[in-house]
Amino acid sequence: MASFDSKKLINNPNDVVTEFIEGLVETYPGLQYLDGFPEVKVVIRADVTGSTYDKVAVISGGGSGHEPAHAGFVGDGMLTAAICGDVFTSPPVASILAGIRAVTGPMGCLLIVKNYTGDRLNFGLAAEEAKSEGYKVEMVIVGDDCALPPPRGISGRRGLAGTILVHKIAGAAAASGLSLSDVAAEARHACEIVGTMGVALSVCTLPGQPKSDRLGPGKMELGLGIHGEAGAVVADIQPVDLVVSHVLNRILSEETKYVPIKRGSRVVLMINGLGATPVMELMIAAGKAVPILQLEHGLAVVRVYTGSFMTSLDMAGFSITIMKAEQAVLQRLDAATKAPHWPVGVDGDHPPAKIPVPVPPSRTTKSDEVLSRPQQLSPQGRALEVAIEAATLAIIDLKDSLNDWDSKVGDGDCGSTMSRGAIAIQEDLKKYYPLNDAAETINEIGSSVRRVMGGTSGILYDIFCKAAYARLKLNKNSDITPLQWADAFEGAIDAVMLYGGAAAGYRTMLDALIPAKTVLRERLTIGDDPFDAFVVSSDAAIAGAESTKHMEAQAGRSTYVSADILTSVPDPGAMAAASWYRAAALALKDKSKSGP
Amino acid sequence: MASFDSKKLINNPNDVVTEFIEGLVETYPGLQYLDGFPEVKVVIRADVTGSTYDKVAVISGGGSGHEPAHAGFVGDGMLTAAICGDVFTSPPVASILAGIRAVTGPMGCLLIVKNYTGDRLNFGLAAEEAKSEGYKVEMVIVGDDCALPPPRGISGRRGLAGTILVHKIAGAAAASGLSLSDVAAEARHACEIVGTMGVALSVCTLPGQPKSDRLGPGKMELGLGIHGEAGAVVADIQPVDLVVSHVLNRILSEETKYVPIKRGSRVVLMINGLGATPVMELMIAAGKAVPILQLEHGLAVVRVYTGSFMTSLDMAGFSITIMKAEQAVLQRLDAATKAPHWPVGVDGDHPPAKIPVPVPPSRTTKSDEVLSRPQQLSPQGRALEVAIEAATLAIIDLKDSLNDWDSKVGDGDCGSTMSRGAIAIQEDLKKYYPLNDAAETINEIGSSVRRVMGGTSGILYDIFCKAAYARLKLNKNSDITPLQWADAFEGAIDAVMLYGGAAAGYRTMLDALIPAKTVLRERLTIGDDPFDAFVVSSDAAIAGAESTKHMEAQAGRSTYVSADILTSVPDPGAMAAASWYRAAALALKDKSKSGP
Repeated sequence: MASFDSKKLINNPNDVVTEFIEGLVETYPGLQYLDGFPEVKVVIRADVTGSTYDKVAVISGGGSGHEPAHAGFVGDGMLTAAICGDVFTSPPVASILAGIRAVTGPMGCLLIVKNYTGDRLNFGLAAEEAKSEGYKVEMVIVGDDCALPPPRGISGRRGLAGTILVHKIAGAAAASGLSLSDVAAEARHACEIVGTMGVALSVCTLPGQPKSDRLGPGKMELGLGIHGEAGAVVADIQPVDLVVSHVLNRILSEETKYVPIKRGSRVVLMINGLGATPVMELMIAAGKAVPILQLEHGLAVVRVYTGSFMTSLDMAGFSITIMKAEQAVLQRLDAATKAPHWPVGVDGDHPPAKIPVPVPPSRTTKSDEVLSRPQQLSPQGRALEVAIEAATLAIIDLKDSLNDWDSKVGDGDCGSTMSRGAIAIQEDLKKYYPLNDAAETINEIGSSVRRVMGGTSGILYDIFCKAAYARLKLNKNSDITPLQWADAFEGAIDAVMLYGGAAAGYRTMLDALIPAKTVLRERLTIGDDPFDAFVVSSDAAIAGAESTKHMEAQAGRSTYVSADILTSVPDPGAMAAASWYRAAALALKDKSKSGP
Repeated sequence: MASFDSKKLINNPNDVVTEFIEGLVETYPGLQYLDGFPEVKVVIRADVTGSTYDKVAVISGGGSGHEPAHAGFVGDGMLTAAICGDVFTSPPVASILAGIRAVTGPMGCLLIVKNYTGDRLNFGLAAEEAKSEGYKVEMVIVGDDCALPPPRGISGRRGLAGTILVHKIAGAAAASGLSLSDVAAEARHACEIVGTMGVALSVCTLPGQPKSDRLGPGKMELGLGIHGEAGAVVADIQPVDLVVSHVLNRILSEETKYVPIKRGSRVVLMINGLGATPVMELMIAAGKAVPILQLEHGLAVVRVYTGSFMTSLDMAGFSITIMKAEQAVLQRLDAATKAPHWPVGVDGDHPPAKIPVPVPPSRTTKSDEVLSRPQQLSPQGRALEVAIEAATLAIIDLKDSLNDWDSKVGDGDCGSTMSRGAIAIQEDLKKYYPLNDAAETINEIGSSVRRVMGGTSGILYDIFCKAAYARLKLNKNSDITPLQWADAFEGAIDAVMLYGGAAAGYRTMLDALIPAKTVLRERLTIGDDPFDAFVVSSDAAIAGAESTKHMEAQAGRSTYVSADILTSVPDPGAMAAASWYRAAALALKDKSKSGP
């Protein structure tokens, strides 16, 4: 398995480019590749045939390993063809020539080539051969790298992610019907107003080769190329805003004057991931770059392209590209394209600063008056108070038993947690529960509980109360009928099932509550006295809770507990639910006998 | 610098989500965030105001770390709002409620929630609160994970990348104006026909925390979650087609019956990168999955979505999602959306198999007859032969000197390489150069040279010849005039400058050729005898080549050589060029004196 040293999900390292292209054309029906594959690795627009194509063809390419560049930018309005070499290797002349022949019509073709010797020479030779065959061909060489001082010699500045913007501008110019010389002129101009610099946190790994650790821990490389070549400087990793600020200073340097951008200019910003950097980090860099450009450089940022456009295999890091945003350039960048990897949703004017949208207020405007204990309790308010007091007392009384059961099947704090909730209810009840409004009171019980009870049980009881509240609120009358209480109870149980994910038999509080709601509904339907119905249904709750002893655990810590132990104790959550329910039922029945 | 242990380009690890959102809204003018930031981390469509929104709002969200999900899928036709929690942490109820209030109009809202307890409970409570405020709210829970056997209990199947497809379907249904219950029904149905399973090569690293090496070298994890939770199985890394095949077998398992897909079904395929996997590897996986689905499972793959949609921070690996491609589902998936990270160019029917486009033939169809030495040489054909013979002999004679000079300033093989080219020309000349056709002969010289001369010099001389050929071919007459030769020579030099990247003074062959072309043009323009003009210009070539001693090297190995040594030798490439040029000039002059 030596060939998988580098931990890539590939087959034969020699086939990665052909297999990439196979996946690409499966993904995008608008793309196609030339026969002659795998030697001729050329991706073209499926809808273009050279002999009949009535626009200038825009062709780019180079070594692979920069995906989605360049094949992912083939599409109406951008590239007409992409010529793919092997990883980091310029494509052979025969491939380039095949691509030119496949898509070039009477209007001719523009070759956009990144400034690397191999690409210049191979594309150059292909261009001359194509010309000798009668094709109109022009070439534009992109050298947007700003990392190094102005070169003295042949090699010149490297072509980096700024090339993608040149593709877009040339592609849009060609799509608008311009002549070859006009398209080439726009592309050349684009090359003169763009600058790029990269930062890497890791070195890329060639397919089938071991991972390099050239960059040690805590180090980053500034001003790197896109072929694993070493960067200009290795430095300690710094917070991203400092890194972004440094890179922008280099691109916009007054010394090198690489890009003709002055204070007051409008600019386009591209944050380009190098292959293994997630969108989150790219967006963070974009968010830092915009205010730095605005405040430190006095520039208006009118477009931001954030994504992985021109990568270096699996390198971690990003490059930043700045282009002067002349109006004509913006028009080309904003023009529609079908190239699948050109970012969408970026066009359109940016406000000078994003003003966040105000959070809309709750539709329920509760005045302090609503949320206060009434001076005078209505009969129903008094009944509610009796039920709540009984229910909370029952929980507090049961605290030690609940803890004891829970210590055998859970983390041992069920009693303490439930009791904390009960005490909070008792306190808030006295302070501000609007007892004459049953719906609001139930809602507040949920809030009290969630404030003091952590974990799943707190939020589930809050959901229980909120769901009941939503249903109780539907009733226009202030007095809630027994059937309306039953509806609310059922709605609350449904919400706990839906959001909690449990059902009957899962050894949860539902095993107390579901039997109770069933019996309650039955009894009310046949016309039983409501208080009797409540009490009888609470027998079912207790029986249901006891029956959890015979259930397997379906969630949480209980699933790790042996069956022997499980059968010795009921589910504490179910017992707690049965207890407060039964206590409330008995208290109300008791009250009903003694009169209002 | 402890907080940068994990080598991420971030600032404070606690701020990554808010800073991500800041970059996101700078990148996409159509997105906006709610005030209340940074506590309330909600991204919404900038063009939607809840009170007036006349469609069903589709809202999703959950813990962050899955970028671009979910905020990158906010846009007309997909999500109306995304609620972002901290990394791998469910968002708080207040955030969810703020999001609901911000975008929900009279038609209501659908919450699409991945099946994790925290998300279910927080979104559930927010839903119930929103209902109590009078909002129409429905929730759909997505559990598309196929890695584990059917769960017995509460937790259920996890929500993975299939959620993105559910978003799209619900978003398109909502955009088409359907009611809340209809949108929810489509979303629920989508959940029932989708299955996903993941494969990871590395574990993700939480911002500010050290990198885990849970997975050793050569290992991969199958059936992982998207929060760094361990996968179902750890296995040795295998070639990607085996990995893809295994994953597809699990998703389509007859035992679990997770997705209702039978042989003959049409399916949608999603290859989803987990954060640090480059597009190249994702496309390779896509290219493998399609034929496996077709051939091994008897399915028609009608859409392929390849990209990083639902990531797990910087995890390396991918998940595969399969959805049954019912016609109604396809219509929703193909519907237009402005969500920036929904893939473009995927819609439209796929042919059953991609038939590659034939490579167009060369427009120049050279018969064997053209490419053969003529029986009878024309005067110009004879002159060409004399010039070629003299030029090649000069190079062969100069071999040792060239090697000697090159050993001091380069790699010592200039003479051997050039001599190899000269010998090939001599041989091919006799075999097949069509000497009476000067243009074709020059073209063939280029081909001979490139066949045997490696490196930059071979391709540059080929470019030189091809460029001359393209210009010579423009002449309709078979006899080339001296001025036409001068034009071709200049065109050839221009091509070498353009593609080679050198200029006068760079210590290359151009320092011989540029002075020669200048003098040749001058002399021809003032009406000199062409043979004299050629000879005089060759004096300039020799002088130019000698002058390279005083030039700094601008490229290649010579840049590493000390100035002392450089001044002792001329550039061997320049000397070679001057020599063949001068030999040709003298031979033609000599021939002109002796008559035809």
